[in-house]
Parts: sequence; structure tokens; C-alpha cells
Amino acid sequence: MVLGAEAPSPSVYLSKRGNSIRQHQGTLQEGFVQYAANKYHVTDNPEGIINLGTSENKLCYDLLHARLTRPDMLYVEPSLLQYSDWTGRTFLREEVAKFLTHYCGSPKTLNADNVVVMNGCGSLFSCVAAVICDPKDAILIPTPFYGVITDDVDLYSDVKLFHVHLDCEGLIIRAVILMNPHNPLAEIYTPEEMIAFLEFAKRNDLHAIVDELYMLTVFDESVTFHSVLSLDSLPDPLRTHVMWGLSKDFAMSGIRAGTLYTENRELVEALAQLGCFHGIPGTVQHQVAQLLQDRAWIDNEFLPENRRRLKAAHSFLTGELRSMGIPFLDRPAALFVWADLREYLQESSFQEELNLWRCFLRHNVLLSCGQAFSCSTPGWFRIVFADQHLHLGGLSQHLGGAGGERGRLVFEDGLTFFQKSQEFRLVNDRTNYQYASYSIKNSSRIAEGLVSLDGEAPKPAESLESLIGTLRNQIRSSDWLEKNTPELSAGEDPEILDVFKALLHRARK
Amino acid sequence: MVLGAEAPSPSVYLSKRGNSIRQHQGTLQEGFVQYAANKYHVTDNPEGIINLGTSENKLCYDLLHARLTRPDMLYVEPSLLQYSDWTGRTFLREEVAKFLTHYCGSPKTLNADNVVVMNGCGSLFSCVAAVICDPKDAILIPTPFYGVITDDVDLYSDVKLFHVHLDCEGLIIRAVILMNPHNPLAEIYTPEEMIAFLEFAKRNDLHAIVDELYMLTVFDESVTFHSVLSLDSLPDPLRTHVMWGLSKDFAMSGIRAGTLYTENRELVEALAQLGCFHGIPGTVQHQVAQLLQDRAWIDNEFLPENRRRLKAAHSFLTGELRSMGIPFLDRPAALFVWADLREYLQESSFQEELNLWRCFLRHNVLLSCGQAFSCSTPGWFRIVFADQHLHLGGLSQHLGGAGGERGRLVFEDGLTFFQKSQEFRLVNDRTNYQYASYSIKNSSRIAEGLVSLDGEAPKPAESLESLIGTLRNQIRSSDWLEKNTPELSAGEDPEILDVFKALLHRARK
Repeated sequence: MVLGAEAPSPSVYLSKRGNSIRQHQGTLQEGFVQYAANKYHVTDNPEGIINLGTSENKLCYDLLHARLTRPDMLYVEPSLLQYSDWTGRTFLREEVAKFLTHYCGSPKTLNADNVVVMNGCGSLFSCVAAVICDPKDAILIPTPFYGVITDDVDLYSDVKLFHVHLDCEGLIIRAVILMNPHNPLAEIYTPEEMIAFLEFAKRNDLHAIVDELYMLTVFDESVTFHSVLSLDSLPDPLRTHVMWGLSKDFAMSGIRAGTLYTENRELVEALAQLGCFHGIPGTVQHQVAQLLQDRAWIDNEFLPENRRRLKAAHSFLTGELRSMGIPFLDRPAALFVWADLREYLQESSFQEELNLWRCFLRHNVLLSCGQAFSCSTPGWFRIVFADQHLHLGGLSQHLGGAGGERGRLVFEDGLTFFQKSQEFRLVNDRTNYQYASYSIKNSSRIAEGLVSLDGEAPKPAESLESLIGTLRNQIRSSDWLEKNTPELSAGEDPEILDVFKALLHRARK
Repeated sequence: MVLGAEAPSPSVYLSKRGNSIRQHQGTLQEGFVQYAANKYHVTDNPEGIINLGTSENKLCYDLLHARLTRPDMLYVEPSLLQYSDWTGRTFLREEVAKFLTHYCGSPKTLNADNVVVMNGCGSLFSCVAAVICDPKDAILIPTPFYGVITDDVDLYSDVKLFHVHLDCEGLIIRAVILMNPHNPLAEIYTPEEMIAFLEFAKRNDLHAIVDELYMLTVFDESVTFHSVLSLDSLPDPLRTHVMWGLSKDFAMSGIRAGTLYTENRELVEALAQLGCFHGIPGTVQHQVAQLLQDRAWIDNEFLPENRRRLKAAHSFLTGELRSMGIPFLDRPAALFVWADLREYLQESSFQEELNLWRCFLRHNVLLSCGQAFSCSTPGWFRIVFADQHLHLGGLSQHLGGAGGERGRLVFEDGLTFFQKSQEFRLVNDRTNYQYASYSIKNSSRIAEGLVSLDGEAPKPAESLESLIGTLRNQIRSSDWLEKNTPELSAGEDPEILDVFKALLHRARK
């Protein structure tokens, strides 16, 4: 691992495992440490670091504040202050089951007994890994992927992720992780694709852990997300486990609430044993249940406005990328854009990617580089757009007037840099939003599919269409970057599942 | 293990570890399952099970409700909804440091950087075990002890507890757990005793994990609790880690907030890595901070009234035990009494102890039996008194009038049974407390030390004094039950630390 070279020396007070845990460098940790010490704030620290690395939705705080301070949220009763069911209190699991039944479009009413609620999906990953795997077993995951899962399944549970692009032998593969919408690609998979993935898992006796954390974060009305819970029947229901949570779709990662839906009672029983380490305060369980059952607020206030703001922020960022000639994957979902900065690397190496990442950081912009997602090709970055700095007010003047010139991208070390984003840090305070005055000027251009996915400057839509068409299919597998290397993409287009199968076979040898 | 004989058969969906986790039977699980399905409620289920097994303080809900519904508790700001420091937010760690400085009587101001806050002390035990031990390493603990710690350090972290009474070889001992006030003995150790324990730990290079969860739950003004944080200096400060939480002292186990204080920065760094699995919602961190800083409420309202109610409940239970001739350990701390029911066993075996425990359960009273605390001698029970059923209103009439006769203990299967406690389930509803009219009639008798610790009927205080004096010293080691067996107590009185040392040496062979 290139990142985090300066690990601390071993402590005599910790065990080998403890030292390994302590010295573990989350990818990008260096950036988050700097960010924690120098956060941007519109008035208090206008020169601080803008965080476009953490996938959080900061666009709807006003809506959330209004809802979370209604009187029903300040509720205490004796049982909420006492120990309770470690899989989540019954009233909450019932609300989650109703919520998922409705928003996942389940053909049957989902059962509250199949719901496990813990303090975040990281905890659920950790627990599921602990009970379906033995130490040193592995879980299959297509790359690139949300890299924190590596730590989620390893730190406590000693389970390894088997990356599709890695050569690795001797591991027992127990499960495959599927993300829909995908992180970091923001790709949305069709029901047919998900069924194909689930059939593959079934044929290989693999658990399928389906991460649908961004299921309500789709901001194009013409695009429909399909939960696997909407399927009439699952290929292998006792090995299919669906994760969801409030962090992304309800923009509250600080509330720590993740849910798992599984028909496998044995798994639920095993998770209940570990649940004592991952409990949610009773009062917060009440609040979450209140929120999930308030369909009027969700459907009429929160979701439509959230989608509008996400769409505007996405349009702004992608417009910027386009004007800079930076290729990116244009998808109307999730809170980030997967962008190709390979042409800004002096050579194709992860050290160079890290240098570029540090260059952004020196200019007070924190991104996530591809290495953090185990991307096999250096030069890709995940850029989070769901922050007010990127789109709040003053945008049209900025684009139209003198700001247009000021906004031109600054080069340093010969690299393009999002200085512009800093210049939006001005006008607004955090509570006085001006969304209404903002119009999405570039939406028509986006709809034209004016997007490039290789390392060159934008081409006309026509010349790109065939490339996009090809890539779109490859991307479905989520390991499209690997397959996009010359050797694999030259002519051959191996069927996804065959690739999985071959790799799985190799891993099991 | 005798308890929980009917473990489920292995699941094909889980790994070996997963099956082991699922099949793990928490001691007393059978009782808690029945309790969950048939909880006593004054109006809804007056014939349900009374839980005197779970150590929760249910005496002060009215005070807590009033405080937790004040407007300062309904507070949301953007950062509370976002990811944050996994050791606890700065504002909370600062409040915890101030709180501990004051209530532990620390000679110096405690440092917020030394505080780690997680969702409960079980999580802290799990994390500390993970980073100071390698898999299969062990932690030394005197028995009897709060048995859940066995699971806390084992389920995720694969660390074993080395009981002082067990023969066990080949383990590497890394730490010793000290509880003060003790659970289940409710014993309060003096600073000199704690220093002796800490010196022992230091001489053997052991971490000392000091559990002070009940530090404010001492309800006799003449008794002073001394936190190890009040010591001028610790023998081995970098290996001394002090745990505290809100579950017991603030009667809110459902809020999930535990704290660790340690000067060892390396340990804090390692814990921070695992903290992502044990996060507390931002809004609850705010609430906890508000509570801890409200010294007027804590000192003038909550603590004095809580102590009064605990003292009354304790007096009632101990009075009952005394009138039944049941010996017990009389200590003005914690939420339970450690009682000796050995004379009700037909033979001295854990199967018989379990039979007795089940007999109580059939009569809808849930206790904790000694086996759950790894007690080496069968027949001891922990009885929680901090529940309103035991002492609410009507008590004086009950003791004095016709109730006195009705209240006589019912025998079934030849066993004494706390039927009486059920008869107090009448008068009060949950919100209309009548504490003011309750006077502690038996306090003078308690003060006389009228308490017996062997299996016979109560004797006059005089004849007991020498026995109590002897036992009091032995009890200090927390493994007094072991030493109280005929072989050990006949004449010899080995020095505590020598026993520890010998056992440690044996374990390390």
C-alpha cells in the first residue's frame, strides 16, 4: 500500500493484533486528519479544507432540522432507557419492514422478524462477516468499490475481500458483495442484471450481500431504481441479505442507523448475539421509527426537494468537469461522480495518483483517489458533489460575469485544480438557503450524453456514442475498469459471470 | 456449562465461528427469553415475570423523564448528523473529562484526549480486549464477576477470561479486570486495596482495567467511594484504564454510552480504529454532554433522590431476606444483593442451583444464579432491588397489617419464594410515585451489621462479628468464595497477591 507510509512504531502496550489495528492506515487517512484540523467554515474558517471526499449529503439540513425538532422527536418512556432486543426494538423493526416494503416495492409484506437494525452498516458488515466466515475466509467483491468495507470485514472479523482483479490463492470465498446503486461508480443495475448476479452467487453457494444504501438517492425521474426486494422471488433467499440505512438516503450518517433484511433466521440469531456491541439508543430508535413512518414528510417534502438539490449540485459539478475536459461517469444517483484524471498523472502509478491527491489537498480540497477503492488503474477520483459549497447561490453570476474568469481553473504543478469550488464558499450562511433562485442551466447538455470516459478531451456526443455503448455494458459488472485495460478489451468481451467463476475457481484452488 | 442445554443444531449457512456465536448461550438466556415474552406490567400483565436479574435502576424514571424532555435535549445541528470522531465528539469527551475530574475527585484536571466514548462498556471491553490481547490470550479476573464480560471479550476478540479458581494452562495473561464497586458482590474497595491491586498488576506487566460503573451508586452517606482517578499517582498509569458509563449511575442502559479514561495514547489510537463499529448518534452525544454538565440537576435533584430510593429499596429487600433467614452480603452500593441460598439446594451442584433458579422463574421471578458469575460454589444468587415493584408505596401497611400475613413466603417444592414481591405490584402507577411517605424502618438494624454469611439462620450480631471480620478481609479479594471453601479457609489465609501471582505463574507455564 502506497498510502500512509508513516505508520507509527509499534507500541509495547498493545498486542500484535492491537498494533496492527492501530497502525492500520485507512486509505486517505492523512487527508481526513488534515481536514479534521482545518475544516472549511463559511465565516470561521473560509480558507479551510473543502471535503469532497466523504460521501455525505449536506444539501438538506434545513429540511432535516425542521423535521427532527418537531415535538414527536422529544419522547422518552421507561423502556427506551432500558436494555432491549439487540437486533433493534420491535417498533423500529416493524417500521423498517413497512418502509422497505413500500420503498423497495416488495410484492409481499416484509416481515419485521427478518430485520436487524444496528448502529450503521459498517457494523452490519462486520457482524455478517463474523458469522458467515471463519477467520481468513474471504468475500468476493468487484473493484472498484467503497474501500471502507475492507476494514469493516477485517478489523474485528479477520475476513478478507477477494478483489476480482487480484491473484490470490488459498482463500475460502463465502460471499459476494453487490452494491446498487454502486459506490463509487453510481451505476444503477437493472433487475435482470441483479438476478444474473444473484444466480451466479447461488450457483456457487455464495451469500449475496446486497448494499442498497443509496436506493432513494436517484435524482432523475426517468430512471427507476429496482431493489432486489422488489423481485417476485429471489434465486437463493436464505443467502440473500439486503442492507440499507439512513446515512445516505436520509443524509444523517451521524445518527448511526443501518438495517439488514434477510429471511435467514439462523443468520438473524447469530447477529443478535453480536448486536450488544452495536446498539442504538432507545430514544434514537424511536426517532428513526417516527421518521420512517412519516410518509407525508418523506414523499412530499424531503425526497422531492432532496432530489432537486442533488440534481442541481450534480449538474454543477459535471458542468465544471465538462468545461475542464475531464471525463467522468455520468449517472443520476448517489452523492459523487467518478472522474478520470489519468491524463494529469505524469506516469501511470499509484504514487503519482497519491501526488495528485496531495496536490488537491494542498489547495484545501479533499477528494478520494481510486486507490481507496482498490481501483486497479491509477488516476481515477471520486468527487462528492452533495455539499452546499459546490452549488449554493451566486452560481449564475459566477458563471456569467467576471466570476467566469476568476473561476478559470488554476494550475499548480501543472495540474488542474478545483480552485473554483473555493470561490463558492462565499455568499450563503448555513441556514439561509437560496435554492429557489437556482436554475439548472446545463441539464439539457447532460441529457445529450455529452460525456467522455477515456483520458482525452471531450468529444462530440456522436463520436462518443459507440464507446459509451460499449463501456456501458462492461460497466455493468462493476469491474469494467479492469476489463477496460488493453488486453481484456481488445476484441474479447467475456461474460461477466464467467469471469467471476474463473476467478472464484482460481481462488479456491 | 449446565445452563442452556438445548442449543440449536448447526446452520449450513453459517461458518464454524458463526455457528459457535449463534449457539452461544448467554447464561440465564432461558430466563430472559421467558421474560421478554411475559414481562410484568402493573395493568397490562400483572401476572407476568418480575425481573430481579437484570441490573437496571428503575427507581428514578420520573426524574429522568423530566430532565430528558427539557428543551435543551431537542437540539440538532449539521455536524451532529455527520460522521465524526470515532472516540466520541470533542464536546462530549470534554464534558466526560470534566465530569470524571469532579466526581472521581481527581487531584488534577483530566484530559479530554484521554477519554474514549463508545456505545456501552461492553463495546469498550470488546475493543480493549482486541487491542491489548491477541486471539486466545487471556485476562485475569477474580470470581465471582459480572459474567457478561466473558462474552464481551470473547465474541469478537477471541480473548479468554482466566478465572482465579480455574486450572488452565497455556494462556498468555495480558490484563486484570477490577470492579469497584464490585459486581455481583457490591463490595467497595478502599484506595489502599486498589493500590495493592494496581501494584500487583504493575509487577506482572498487566493492564489493569478498572470498572467503576457503579461509582455514584453508593447510598450510604457514611461510606465514601474512592475512584482510582482520585489517587495522587497511579502505579502504572499507561496500563491503567478506567471505565464508567451512564447505564447504572444514571439509570439509562438503553442510551448506550460508556466511557474509558486512559493516559495511554497508543491505546486510544487503537480504540479509535474500532470505534466505527461502536458509534453513538451525534444527537445523543449532545444530550449526554448536556446531562453531564448540569451539575445543579445532578447534585441537587438526581443523586440525592436516587440514593434515597435505592436505600429504601435495598432496606426492603434486605429486611425480607433477613426475615427469611437468608444470609447475604450487606453493602450500601450497586443495584443488587448477593444472597446465599445454599441451604435450599438438595445437593451442592450447579444443576441443583439451576433447578432452584427455574423454580423462581416458574413463579415469575427472574434472578441471576451464581453460575452466571462463574461462582465456584453453587447456591449463590444476585437479586436486583432497584425496581419499583419491590418497594413502591403501601409498604408500611403491608409490613404492619394483614398484608404481613399474606406476605408470608410461600413454599413450593419446599423452597422459599419471593411471592411477596408480587404482591407489591398493586397500588402505584408508573408516574405517580409516593416516595415521600416511605420511611426506612429497618435502617438501624442494618447498621448493626445483623447479617449472616453462611448457610444458617441469622445469628445475633455478637456471634457473627468475628466471622464477618474474617470474611470481610477475604472478600476484599473478590474471590473470597473460592477461599471460603473448607480446604482454603481452614487456618490458612494466603495473601491475596500471592494467590494471584501463583495462579498467574501456573497459567503462564
